[in-house]
Amino acid sequence: MSLQSALFRSSPVARPKKALTIDNINPHLLEADYAVRGKLAIRAEELRDRLKAGDTSLPFTEVINSNIGNPQQLDQRPITFFRQVLSLVQYPDLMLSPYADKIFPPDAIARATGLLEEIGSLGAYSHSQGVPCIRQSVANFIAERDGFPADPKDIYLVGGASSGVSNLLTTICNGPETGVMIPVPQYPLYSATLAIVDATPVPYYLNEADRWSTDPGHIRQAILGALAKGVKVKAVVVINPCNPTGSSLSRQDIKDILALAAEHGILVVADEVYQTNVYGSEFHSFKKVLREAQRDHPGVFDDVELASLHSTSKGMVGECGQRGGYVELIGINDDVMEQFYKLVSISLCPAVSGQVLTEVMVNPPREGDPSYPLYRQEYDHIYSTLKTRALALYEAFQQMDGVSCQPPMGAMYLFPTITLPAKAIKKAQDLGTAPDQFYCMQLLEATGICVIPGSGFGQKPGEYHFRTTFLAPGDDHIQRMIRFHNGFVAQYS
Amino acid sequence: MSLQSALFRSSPVARPKKALTIDNINPHLLEADYAVRGKLAIRAEELRDRLKAGDTSLPFTEVINSNIGNPQQLDQRPITFFRQVLSLVQYPDLMLSPYADKIFPPDAIARATGLLEEIGSLGAYSHSQGVPCIRQSVANFIAERDGFPADPKDIYLVGGASSGVSNLLTTICNGPETGVMIPVPQYPLYSATLAIVDATPVPYYLNEADRWSTDPGHIRQAILGALAKGVKVKAVVVINPCNPTGSSLSRQDIKDILALAAEHGILVVADEVYQTNVYGSEFHSFKKVLREAQRDHPGVFDDVELASLHSTSKGMVGECGQRGGYVELIGINDDVMEQFYKLVSISLCPAVSGQVLTEVMVNPPREGDPSYPLYRQEYDHIYSTLKTRALALYEAFQQMDGVSCQPPMGAMYLFPTITLPAKAIKKAQDLGTAPDQFYCMQLLEATGICVIPGSGFGQKPGEYHFRTTFLAPGDDHIQRMIRFHNGFVAQYS
Repeated sequence: MSLQSALFRSSPVARPKKALTIDNINPHLLEADYAVRGKLAIRAEELRDRLKAGDTSLPFTEVINSNIGNPQQLDQRPITFFRQVLSLVQYPDLMLSPYADKIFPPDAIARATGLLEEIGSLGAYSHSQGVPCIRQSVANFIAERDGFPADPKDIYLVGGASSGVSNLLTTICNGPETGVMIPVPQYPLYSATLAIVDATPVPYYLNEADRWSTDPGHIRQAILGALAKGVKVKAVVVINPCNPTGSSLSRQDIKDILALAAEHGILVVADEVYQTNVYGSEFHSFKKVLREAQRDHPGVFDDVELASLHSTSKGMVGECGQRGGYVELIGINDDVMEQFYKLVSISLCPAVSGQVLTEVMVNPPREGDPSYPLYRQEYDHIYSTLKTRALALYEAFQQMDGVSCQPPMGAMYLFPTITLPAKAIKKAQDLGTAPDQFYCMQLLEATGICVIPGSGFGQKPGEYHFRTTFLAPGDDHIQRMIRFHNGFVAQYS
Repeated sequence: MSLQSALFRSSPVARPKKALTIDNINPHLLEADYAVRGKLAIRAEELRDRLKAGDTSLPFTEVINSNIGNPQQLDQRPITFFRQVLSLVQYPDLMLSPYADKIFPPDAIARATGLLEEIGSLGAYSHSQGVPCIRQSVANFIAERDGFPADPKDIYLVGGASSGVSNLLTTICNGPETGVMIPVPQYPLYSATLAIVDATPVPYYLNEADRWSTDPGHIRQAILGALAKGVKVKAVVVINPCNPTGSSLSRQDIKDILALAAEHGILVVADEVYQTNVYGSEFHSFKKVLREAQRDHPGVFDDVELASLHSTSKGMVGECGQRGGYVELIGINDDVMEQFYKLVSISLCPAVSGQVLTEVMVNPPREGDPSYPLYRQEYDHIYSTLKTRALALYEAFQQMDGVSCQPPMGAMYLFPTITLPAKAIKKAQDLGTAPDQFYCMQLLEATGICVIPGSGFGQKPGEYHFRTTFLAPGDDHIQRMIRFHNGFVAQYS
């Protein structure tokens, strides 16, 4: 067909509609909801832009993004050794400079040199599963953490845990008959990804009164309830330490979940990206508890399948924008692993710089290394800052009428319950918005503080929560939040 | 349920099967095929590992990965200015060093400083669409390239073009009734992604005899043929310059495709990652040709929707492992754009270091800048090296019996036709393998050179091709390839 015939055929009357309309694109995507970067975050961006443009009409002078665990957007500084190594592998000529040893400690230079020998260039695609020597470092880290060996063959480096989750759920889900258990509340990456892959989320409630613990009896009920509806639960997602609740599971909770997985033949997806963010509690990895259970109860836990995720975005690393991390896959059949490998190979490899960051996260300077004292000092400073801020925010919630909150145990979040006045609930309903969404939007408009309503994570009907990070520095915003809340309650009482 | 009851219930007899088996995971993933990192690449890795372990029994001493456009895995060096900026933004303390100006040119320091003012830290999540000032630089680049304006609102920075394609196809596809036209031969990212999202690939043949040009009459037939089978073509993928054929489309070819898109209401997905890899031909962007057509034929092309992809992995940049690039979305309804935004926001943001690389790719040193002479020299050296190697390989194919190849015009590949002797075809069939797969595996085992059979990209029935990059340095491997080929033909004649 020539252009002329196209012109001839394309009379205005006959012209087709747009190729893409909201009615003909992927309906599963339409169903997906991701509140962390949803309406509140978009409104916060608008307000920030107005402030930046010199708008003085707002009742605040800064927007505080407590909606997302993004510590380096606030005042957290990166760990020096990590950035030195990344800088050197980006520009290896630096090491040829006569000033190199005046700028970089010898262990940073040695690490960069060793990595470059294996990698060649940050600009080359790596193995789709990740650079082999870095996967070995991850395996060593896991072995040291758990006291049980790990195999680099089971490790996949990922561009942030989110992409690991997406690839994992894409691999295992087979339509609406596939059930994947997700906690309520949950990090909405899971519900959104399940919507997109058209699998069925099977919710199980966390027990707020008992520090958001898991209840195996309730999980078992949910498995059976799903089965009665024709949905076979294939996986259970556990986020530990927990986003959004800030809780941390006991060893017994973990063992109970593994026992259910053994009994029902269910993959455990352990989102452990906050494994170093524990405050006054101990982190127990699913892998370690599994290996202990396999040792202590021969035969019972042998077939358990586990995917454990870790990330460079959280912990004391906090390098969200660098997109690093790994997933360890345990007990999974080789032919299924091959399919997972094929899927990750289609996008070639995760960013090699993020892989290098994963290397230094799992293999940081050790006692005796030149960089160790500074590393230790930076790490401890970040940890104590996070803990202090968590407690300060927790204390503030005690001063707010009708707010109750479990004590901070892990992750970067608090997830208080708010008792909203009946008039506020009525007002929200009149506006056609969820009551906690209404509350959070009012908070943002009044104070510049952006938090996410509990409805974005899931909660029991009739309950209202919000999730806030405790990353923001200083006390001012906390005082603003208290004043807003007490004013809001007074206004609608 | 207690652990005890789990132990009780989990008798060996009753124990369920593994949660994940090849029969119950995503069947669409099973269908996907990605030859670029398939059997040949895996075998090449094994052979490389054997050489590394000191195995001297192989008939070669090095493995050459001509299966993948990965120039920095071979001898291509990164462009110095790019790496200087990346190194500085990774470790901003470098700029405080008294030696900084002895190591880094002032324009690299200025660029890094400016970017850090906007970004804050490479370790912070950016806007999900990408850092605003970098999207502005991309828009400026497109405007300068095309002579028509571009809008940062339409630009999405991506973690490599592959993730852009995956997100785009996930957004637009709605089950098997959605048809997406793909060229034959094509880069298998497209067929693999369509398999996973369960849409229907609608193939259209490229015309090898006419330098792999597109044939609008054939495309139109394919659209109508699909419709007759109940498949509505929603998008047409065009790879220009072309992977795997190494061709480059004329302005008329592009205009004809846009006219078909206007006539039938079809999104054009223009994979333009090789836009600077043109040798003896001129690159015409789909965006420019679209804007010209809109100007020259009022009303006809107004509703055309276009997605144009670019990458930091190809061109003279060649930074595959850094995972940068962008997609520009033109003419797409706002409500559809919102869904695309939501999808990308679920994985938060592409690696910010890859975004910075995109910035320096689209906004390199200009004449008069301190870094310009070195940049120019490096850029020109890479370009002339690629062109020389392309021609050398092309010449070599002239010396091989039964091999014919179109002249190199673009991208990083040649895609010769091979006439295989009947006995070789028979032998392959006896082994249950595709004849061109058999040929390529024999080539690998005999020479260490890894290329990909045409069957991995698609070809007309009864034809045989292979795709090879022309990135490898030197002449030795070319001589080995000639000797192998002529020996193979002699053996099976």
